Amino acid sequence: MRATCILLCFFTFLVASSAHPGKKKQYKPCKELVLYFHDIIYNGQNAANATSAIVAAPEGANLTILASQFHFGNIAVFDDPITLDNNLHSPPVGRAQGMYIYDTKNTFTALLGFSFVLNSTDHHGTINFIGADPTTLKTRDISVVGGTGDFFMHRGIATIATDAYEGDVYFRLRVDIKFYECW
Amino acid sequence: MRATCILLCFFTFLVASSAHPGKKKQYKPCKELVLYFHDIIYNGQNAANATSAIVAAPEGANLTILASQFHFGNIAVFDDPITLDNNLHSPPVGRAQGMYIYDTKNTFTALLGFSFVLNSTDHHGTINFIGADPTTLKTRDISVVGGTGDFFMHRGIATIATDAYEGDVYFRLRVDIKFYECW
Amino acid sequence: MRATCILLCFFTFLVASSAHPGKKKQYKPCKELVLYFHDIIYNGQNAANATSAIVAAPEGANLTILASQFHFGNIAVFDDPITLDNNLHSPPVGRAQGMYIYDTKNTFTALLGFSFVLNSTDHHGTINFIGADPTTLKTRDISVVGGTGDFFMHRGIATIATDAYEGDVYFRLRVDIKFYECW
Repeated sequence: MRATCILLCFFTFLVASSAHPGKKKQYKPCKELVLYFHDIIYNGQNAANATSAIVAAPEGANLTILASQFHFGNIAVFDDPITLDNNLHSPPVGRAQGMYIYDTKNTFTALLGFSFVLNSTDHHGTINFIGADPTTLKTRDISVVGGTGDFFMHRGIATIATDAYEGDVYFRLRVDIKFYECW
Repeated sequence: MRATCILLCFFTFLVASSAHPGKKKQYKPCKELVLYFHDIIYNGQNAANATSAIVAAPEGANLTILASQFHFGNIAVFDDPITLDNNLHSPPVGRAQGMYIYDTKNTFTALLGFSFVLNSTDHHGTINFIGADPTTLKTRDISVVGGTGDFFMHRGIATIATDAYEGDVYFRLRVDIKFYECW
Repeated sequence: MRATCILLCFFTFLVASSAHPGKKKQYKPCKELVLYFHDIIYNGQNAANATSAIVAAPEGANLTILASQFHFGNIAVFDDPITLDNNLHSPPVGRAQGMYIYDTKNTFTALLGFSFVLNSTDHHGTINFIGADPTTLKTRDISVVGGTGDFFMHRGIATIATDAYEGDVYFRLRVDIKFYECW
């Protein structure tokens, strides 16, 4: 809840201002969720299983093979199942829906813009994300810019890790969502 | 205004913590706007009237017909007039500009990313939106992630309803923007 | 820091509520950064130098020439160097990564969605942006919707100005980032 957050922050302020000047502040999430999502990219032969598709590509590239130069210029649209554990076949608790844009020529980096649409006994609502995903790093932080339903007006940080990567066909991301503004 | 919001939240906290534990909290918007916008998608024959165009599509699809499989993979760019009522021919108070991405294979869902650019006697500024739009539901909530001008630093929730839908040529959305953080 | 911001806002509230009713409120940023980024768009002949590429276009257009009708419908993906001054050859302090979408038929306007990925002695972290960019105006405001690292949970406004424009090949943007929520 927002008021709680504000009181916490105020307390943090009192503590932070009295000791350890220059030390990095640490905030405690008001809510945390760890979820996985699974992406199977369309390669021209897996239409039945694919959960994502290349829909834009730079000049000279096509829509069934990720572009050369670290896929620079590819936009993929996805509708990926979200699970509570790292098993693709676990019952999904929602869908991750949106796009990733490969936006670097000399390494693998993507801009992510997507929603988690959750619909389970535990959670009902959406969470909206935007951020840079330099996929070769072990973990990457992106912004949680808003939410609806159970996540009404929430903000936070999502820490993403590549939990599995199988060529250009399948990858699985672990998403540790830490909300710092709850309502 | 932010301070007002914080005081309100604090009061809400006092009330909420003393009674009805477990009951869903209700917040009151600090500002509310109801607007309509109108989308006419380019189909190869309506260049003069069209306000949006398909610019990306999955393999095998084209740019004048929305893709099969619930339009999965289509990205449309739009510049739609915003009106105060549900009449396409009312004087526009601004433009809705951005994109929608059809991102589900088995139902109609889009990811929305767009701005309202308002320029009327009543409102001058922009409002930025991102969120999932499962278009078959009666109403859908998306995030208002920021604003400029009269909407400086605002955040909130926009409730979207399809007010009219005429085949794949015209649709009209009613947008009820509720700001919960005003400055 | 958030608590500081809240105290400031509270003080602002006391001041604002006691005098000059109706006068526009002025907020002071809790942090400010001025940076430049440089975009060289791929035109079919500058592959080595290009930092951006057209990846989507409306029907009838191609991926090496910006579309007619004010480029309506073009999506460009970019990975642009960020510098501290207006010199393309200054040592970069990070990369601006994301996309711009030309989304108006009768003037030059783009929707921006991108991240600043900063990695210098002074700043380490990312800043996420979304907003409308009517490029013919001298300055434009967009939303800073979140950040990570040194910019953890920050929000603010970025004022963008076109600092140089050389045909459809090179442009340079000056970005004045004013954070109003610091943590």
